[in-house]
Amino acid sequence: MQQLRIPGPTPCPPEVLKAIGRQMINHRGKEFAEIIRDITPKLKEMFQTKNDIFLLTGSGTGGMEAAVVNTLSPGDKVLATSCGFFGDRFAEIGEVYGAEVKRLNFEWGKPVDPDAVRQALKADSGIKAVLVTHNETSTGVTNDLKSISAIANEFDKLVLVDAISGLGSIDLPVDAWQCDVVVTASQKGWMVPPGLAMVSVSEKAWQAHAKAKMPRYYWDFTSAKNYLEKGQTPTTPAVSVFFGLAVALDMMLAEGLQNIFARHAKLAGLARNGAKSMGLTLVPEERYASNTITAIRASDKLNVAKLLQLLENEHGVVLAGGQGSLSGKIFRIGHLGWIGEKDIKQVLDAITKVIPQASS
Amino acid sequence: MQQLRIPGPTPCPPEVLKAIGRQMINHRGKEFAEIIRDITPKLKEMFQTKNDIFLLTGSGTGGMEAAVVNTLSPGDKVLATSCGFFGDRFAEIGEVYGAEVKRLNFEWGKPVDPDAVRQALKADSGIKAVLVTHNETSTGVTNDLKSISAIANEFDKLVLVDAISGLGSIDLPVDAWQCDVVVTASQKGWMVPPGLAMVSVSEKAWQAHAKAKMPRYYWDFTSAKNYLEKGQTPTTPAVSVFFGLAVALDMMLAEGLQNIFARHAKLAGLARNGAKSMGLTLVPEERYASNTITAIRASDKLNVAKLLQLLENEHGVVLAGGQGSLSGKIFRIGHLGWIGEKDIKQVLDAITKVIPQASS
Repeated sequence: MQQLRIPGPTPCPPEVLKAIGRQMINHRGKEFAEIIRDITPKLKEMFQTKNDIFLLTGSGTGGMEAAVVNTLSPGDKVLATSCGFFGDRFAEIGEVYGAEVKRLNFEWGKPVDPDAVRQALKADSGIKAVLVTHNETSTGVTNDLKSISAIANEFDKLVLVDAISGLGSIDLPVDAWQCDVVVTASQKGWMVPPGLAMVSVSEKAWQAHAKAKMPRYYWDFTSAKNYLEKGQTPTTPAVSVFFGLAVALDMMLAEGLQNIFARHAKLAGLARNGAKSMGLTLVPEERYASNTITAIRASDKLNVAKLLQLLENEHGVVLAGGQGSLSGKIFRIGHLGWIGEKDIKQVLDAITKVIPQASS
Repeated sequence: MQQLRIPGPTPCPPEVLKAIGRQMINHRGKEFAEIIRDITPKLKEMFQTKNDIFLLTGSGTGGMEAAVVNTLSPGDKVLATSCGFFGDRFAEIGEVYGAEVKRLNFEWGKPVDPDAVRQALKADSGIKAVLVTHNETSTGVTNDLKSISAIANEFDKLVLVDAISGLGSIDLPVDAWQCDVVVTASQKGWMVPPGLAMVSVSEKAWQAHAKAKMPRYYWDFTSAKNYLEKGQTPTTPAVSVFFGLAVALDMMLAEGLQNIFARHAKLAGLARNGAKSMGLTLVPEERYASNTITAIRASDKLNVAKLLQLLENEHGVVLAGGQGSLSGKIFRIGHLGWIGEKDIKQVLDAITKVIPQASS
């Protein structure tokens, strides 16, 4: 079997795949209502929140777009923090919809500096919202969201979080950290196929929503809320992914949040130590390294494209390359979701074997 | 087994369900590229077009939003024809994004009148685009899209078509009828679960796109085109639905377009005749009645909610009620996708048995 170790889609357990392959049902019927009413409170447990949670049919990026268009108006000043490809994407979405985006960029591989966020908010009282990436998939960095959100809340700003590749795998207590809109997606630590974005919406976000003038139809939160009261979604949902998520959430709750976080921390430690023991360098400083994705710098002699090809063809191990400016310079191991120690060892063994062949 | 006879999601053949339940793969890898490059030309065959076709992860409504935001600018004058719930939705999307929408409404149950479209276009030369519903799911009406599009093209207008519940089941030669953006969705006649909207984009639509200023990120056609060149999608796609669609398209092409259309026409005839033979009235005049959905008026004595409940609980037959102003007044049989004569007979038998119990 292929070892799919990219940062999503992640492999699905057989129980989930079985559910995914179920025959269709009426999305306006009783059974679907039962499913969405079963899933939603379980997601709240995973998000550690009492906020509303909506399941939007789309990719995670759709959830990011939803976070922006539901809470902001054209011309609103937004502080977009970014330390990688997905931070930049969040800023770009804001710009496309007419926000006045102040970009606060950090070198790829470094985290967002909370002090710099404080300075930026001090310097411009007109800023309405802060965009933050919880776990920057492109560089394998986990930002100090707790501190960033605390500072943003100190200045009474709205906190919009792309937690797509972190939530459910790395501790992110949405209410304790006062995050207003938090986005994740089904194909990450949730162990189900892509097709659903899950978003939480705080009371403060609802207040912003009431005044937000960016155009929205498909992603509209009010519409999602109204339909959820009937046990439905505004438009035809990705029913199969709902089937899978219902099963996966039960597995996750049975394992327990803290155990899931500890498992991901342990696996990440194995991946990082493995890379270092091969003489490779991590992209981020280790204290900021993500527990879901390990980004590894290739030495000058290592051909990343060749490495990835050999891993896949000769060992059935599928890793990810670099994105944007890191393309060809790094490779990434995804270790989130349905994965254990044995899997990491298999990946590391394969890398060890392949490196000599992929080096010049 | 449940007889799911709503206008989507439709039941999936076992071969499709098996594919849907496949393990995940890398959406940036070689196999996914092969799948999207296999699916796209087959969809072109089904759309009867040489235009670009994109697969967008989302509901059909997302595809409608994509059609609007990719081709129009705020302030553009748009003629929104509507004879039901989904025609109204198309108009609303235009309004939300700032188009100056001229609504051309027809009584629910009646079709859009091509002559009225001609008059409206004659009366206002500033109109840029015409929004049309091919097959109005809420009333079971198929519009004369051929004539409407011919008139719109005579006046050199852009033709944006919601063909969600018709395309692939009812003849719609996109190129011959000169339709610029045509939208459908996976859970209809395509026999796969919801999660993908499929849209075709004409050269004229691309020209409009180049000037279109409505904000868009997730639904952007340029982005879809650039990624498709690499055999990818801009954001993580609903991989499982791609797996299913690959199988379903092969089944459809093996059956053949004309045979599929003929089968749907035959099944619709059976449904209509069955309803009439019970003394029930169709919502539309028969010459406009859809070949994918039969909408039936309830007599004053018939309790629709009770009818639907009895059908489901006692016969395992799931039909749809009415939407919007037709709620409680009509019921609808979906007969699109993976369905044969036996299924229609079973539905009609069940209705016959249940009507006395559901009547006062």
